[in-house]
Amino acid sequence: MPITVIPVEGLPLIRPGDDLARLIAAQVELVDGDILCVASSVWSKAAGNLRSLDECVPGDRAIAIAAKTGEDPRFIQAVLDESESLILEHPFVLSVLPHGHIGVRAGVDQSNVDGGQVILLPRDPLNAAAGLADSLLEVSGARVGVIVTDTCGRSFRRGQTGHAIGWSGMTAIRDFRGETDLFGHELKITEEAVVDEIAGFANLVMGESDAGVPAVVFRGIPPWTGHDDLYWREGEDLIREALCRVHSVRPLR
Amino acid sequence: MPITVIPVEGLPLIRPGDDLARLIAAQVELVDGDILCVASSVWSKAAGNLRSLDECVPGDRAIAIAAKTGEDPRFIQAVLDESESLILEHPFVLSVLPHGHIGVRAGVDQSNVDGGQVILLPRDPLNAAAGLADSLLEVSGARVGVIVTDTCGRSFRRGQTGHAIGWSGMTAIRDFRGETDLFGHELKITEEAVVDEIAGFANLVMGESDAGVPAVVFRGIPPWTGHDDLYWREGEDLIREALCRVHSVRPLR
Repeated sequence: MPITVIPVEGLPLIRPGDDLARLIAAQVELVDGDILCVASSVWSKAAGNLRSLDECVPGDRAIAIAAKTGEDPRFIQAVLDESESLILEHPFVLSVLPHGHIGVRAGVDQSNVDGGQVILLPRDPLNAAAGLADSLLEVSGARVGVIVTDTCGRSFRRGQTGHAIGWSGMTAIRDFRGETDLFGHELKITEEAVVDEIAGFANLVMGESDAGVPAVVFRGIPPWTGHDDLYWREGEDLIREALCRVHSVRPLR
Repeated sequence: MPITVIPVEGLPLIRPGDDLARLIAAQVELVDGDILCVASSVWSKAAGNLRSLDECVPGDRAIAIAAKTGEDPRFIQAVLDESESLILEHPFVLSVLPHGHIGVRAGVDQSNVDGGQVILLPRDPLNAAAGLADSLLEVSGARVGVIVTDTCGRSFRRGQTGHAIGWSGMTAIRDFRGETDLFGHELKITEEAVVDEIAGFANLVMGESDAGVPAVVFRGIPPWTGHDDLYWREGEDLIREALCRVHSVRPLR
């Protein structure tokens, strides 16, 4: 069965206090089983999850890092305030967020926002996704899955892709452990990060720049089973370990 | 405009010598502008890009690595033969392939193949994609883009996702450099690895295990412009550098 991917066009510029679910449901007729991807920046704008740079008073650490990266110390302070721990200070700040995601500049975003403000990632992205799913059920009557997306770089390859940072109504990972291939061998690939595969394609459909479409609906993806253990923990990730050993960044707190 | 994603169902089990383009075109009516994703394993099976483990005579290096990873030394020899250089020897071999891709076990695959054989990645995946596009034009009359996919792990996050290793009829990266956001600021995200975003979603639609569908058609993705410089080169990638410094694996040749 084909899958249909629908860009949610015609949304107004989202502002703090906007009812995102109602605005989306006015543009697209949702049905049970749909998966809606929404850019974290847009979720955060509607939720007022912004900070004014003028209110970010940089501490010594932010000032020291900003001197190395050439960025605004107030911006770096906003990044540190969102971070649980640091992996890299420069050439860019790479940090671990309280919810497990590891992101450049803690996902703090200066684009598509006016007047010296920055957009923060949702502090609790699973809850953000669940809340939006509840609101969409209320306004549309449809029980949909929600993925909150962010755009991130990768190891070994240039270019960013969309990643999931929050999800609701699905598991993050499709778990094939114990299944066998066409010849009865145990599978080599056993855990598939389906939320990231969906978020990636949503990111392509969203686009960037001034033609941006901040929400995308996927219709007809068959359901899967699995688990939500998307992030490597400390000590499980060879790459994080190597970065920490080589760069030995001083703890944040 | 919605995008349609069509799993190519009903393909027979692909064997060496099969005309992959003709088999695909018999199952789905292709139109100009479609993008066809095909699993590298299936491309390699049709092309006979397999090796029998019995013909892989393990050298000293393969025997030493296999002792650490607990794998068949013949399998490790096949992995080394596909590799240009090594980044990790264990807990798994991570190597750089001649075409730039960095993959676990050099993408050599023991699943979904019978009788002590392994499937190799296409040696020249760009050419593999272009050749399949040419064959599809011949058998269907449609000028389609082709992406050859593989399944890979990522940094910081559990689970594998689909990645592009070969592409034709498109650039790997959509390049936004110089564009501005809704408020006229220069964009934070400037290079988007769209081939990986498409390959990832294709991987979800393909599935694994015995219900696998090895080809997926995307219809209606608007064209983009950019470049093909998908892989970080040595010295450009902080993560590769950190892994190499911590693990300091002896050069392969």
